[in-house]
Amino acid sequence: MTARTLTVALGQRSYPIHIGAGLLGEAALYRPALRGRQVLVVSNDTVAPLYLERVRAALEGLEVDSLQLADGEAYKTLTTLGTIYDRLLERAYARDCAIVALGGGVVGDIAGFAAATYQRGVDFIQVPTTLLAQVDSSVGGKTGVNHPLGKNMIGAFHQPRAVIADTATLSTLPERELRAGLAEVIKYGLLGDAEFFDWLEANMEALLARDGEALALAIHRSCADKARIVAADEREAGQRALLNLGHTFGHAIETGVGYGRWLHGEAVAAGMCMAAELSHRLGWLEASSVERARALIERTGLPVAPPPGLGAAEMQRLMGRDKKVAGGRLRLVLLRGIGHALVTADFDAAALSAVLQDFAQRAA
Amino acid sequence: MTARTLTVALGQRSYPIHIGAGLLGEAALYRPALRGRQVLVVSNDTVAPLYLERVRAALEGLEVDSLQLADGEAYKTLTTLGTIYDRLLERAYARDCAIVALGGGVVGDIAGFAAATYQRGVDFIQVPTTLLAQVDSSVGGKTGVNHPLGKNMIGAFHQPRAVIADTATLSTLPERELRAGLAEVIKYGLLGDAEFFDWLEANMEALLARDGEALALAIHRSCADKARIVAADEREAGQRALLNLGHTFGHAIETGVGYGRWLHGEAVAAGMCMAAELSHRLGWLEASSVERARALIERTGLPVAPPPGLGAAEMQRLMGRDKKVAGGRLRLVLLRGIGHALVTADFDAAALSAVLQDFAQRAA
Repeated sequence: MTARTLTVALGQRSYPIHIGAGLLGEAALYRPALRGRQVLVVSNDTVAPLYLERVRAALEGLEVDSLQLADGEAYKTLTTLGTIYDRLLERAYARDCAIVALGGGVVGDIAGFAAATYQRGVDFIQVPTTLLAQVDSSVGGKTGVNHPLGKNMIGAFHQPRAVIADTATLSTLPERELRAGLAEVIKYGLLGDAEFFDWLEANMEALLARDGEALALAIHRSCADKARIVAADEREAGQRALLNLGHTFGHAIETGVGYGRWLHGEAVAAGMCMAAELSHRLGWLEASSVERARALIERTGLPVAPPPGLGAAEMQRLMGRDKKVAGGRLRLVLLRGIGHALVTADFDAAALSAVLQDFAQRAA
Repeated sequence: MTARTLTVALGQRSYPIHIGAGLLGEAALYRPALRGRQVLVVSNDTVAPLYLERVRAALEGLEVDSLQLADGEAYKTLTTLGTIYDRLLERAYARDCAIVALGGGVVGDIAGFAAATYQRGVDFIQVPTTLLAQVDSSVGGKTGVNHPLGKNMIGAFHQPRAVIADTATLSTLPERELRAGLAEVIKYGLLGDAEFFDWLEANMEALLARDGEALALAIHRSCADKARIVAADEREAGQRALLNLGHTFGHAIETGVGYGRWLHGEAVAAGMCMAAELSHRLGWLEASSVERARALIERTGLPVAPPPGLGAAEMQRLMGRDKKVAGGRLRLVLLRGIGHALVTADFDAAALSAVLQDFAQRAA
């Protein structure tokens, strides 16, 4: 098994990301990230039947317990979090224990938040099994749960001690989730890596066909792009916000349609199209670049507009609740070109309204 | 109004502690700690009627909302925390908002944890109104809630941006809470400040009589002692654990009798007597020092043994669940002298059992 390894450089909190086929069964990748002997593997009822036993085998000799959550964003709640706390306390997990998240972004976010807050913080290892989690949510230390009134509104920064991204798990990933993960991959190209965007235009068919080498390369490049941004701005005081390209629109879509109806990546895909269009209306982005973004997203089989029925006024209201609101002003990630994003609150509100109206009509 | 101000030195997260009579109405102390305009004051139904209006007046001109929790440790739960999140989301609080905790340790811990986790962390100001909170829980950034199976088992480190300790609030503090707060004051003397312990022996009657100058001096000295330890070890990798003198025993007592039956300081007082006795049995502490500790605690009107009915076996079981357990071994804070504590897992388990038996008999 060949692994590509890169490092998220955060001083004492630095950690490796291992990428390769078959890695989740490699004991040697877990051991350096464990301090104590108690390990709780948190997974869900879709992923556990496929991979839990191999992870358990890799942890042999330790005190390993596991917990299976119900699968889906709808369960990323304080209530589910409570079931993790209950298990940790019932089994008297000590402060030197570790939590392993085996699954997609939902499992990683919620298990990570449990790790961030159990006894004010315990060790945490991410074993992402979806493309979305491998290229995005498992890297960077954002953890949390949803609230009925907003996505990811409750959470903490808590870096994992290692990320083990086993690309072989993508062979069992549903088609729709593969495409949703590719939305975040495209995002890295759009926001700061024009060369990667070019590569994606040339290789999207190989990625959709799950070509192992193409996927490994895309995951590595995405993680490297993200790791660089996170290392420079761990707690999102500045440029880390660039990673939210498409997300303010996307979160509004996810909330508007109800959690779990659209996948996160699908909402982000439509959101990136909206961000590109707004950038164009503001005179910052050429029409040809808007079209390149839209075309690649469409070729990936992703939505390029919000769903029917979600009106412009409702979108605007939901966007106003976004975390990127500061001092009452909505900040957005917009584009000055392919591979060149910026965070700004300095845009014409009328242009935003026009874009929301425009997309609401496209959807209808 | 004269204020003593000292600083908790934590680099970018450094913050002032202001101590003095009447300070909670001083607008100038809040303003440097606020970045945005939205402020949620979290208090409880005992403290709010006394002081909320004055805090609101000090925040005039900002968007101020308030939330009153039920008073008591029994409400330091995930459920109560949920009511704070609900309010923040219902009113669309943005990431640059601030939470002000007006009350004792319970309000500070839970409001602080809400601040630590709302949108992955927002600003937080502590306005402690009990002696316990002024000398201990408001300083150092420990936040959290209880779980039915353990106290403070869920939480985060999140430093406040300022602590405003208004000593005038102590005039309305119930006698029992004053004494409980003095337990933590005595703790600072015992664990690392022999000179302060001497001073407390000479001035306990003045403190119990609520002499303003004596109280201000004791609070300042306690905060200075704590600030020095926290600055050296923010996340309790080492010497910060010294602050837990009496707490492993104390938490077991609190859990054993049921939250809220004993005040935290009362449990810590009995716990310090037990730690001193164990230190003596191990040959580390002179009998005369055990007696000095016990005598001062008794003069303060605090318990010097666990309550009747809490057996040695149950104490031992509950202590095993403590956060200070590492690698399956219980670590305790013990004493080598008045003003000289150490953290160790290297003690004779039989001596601990003997001490637990001994105190269970004293209580019966």
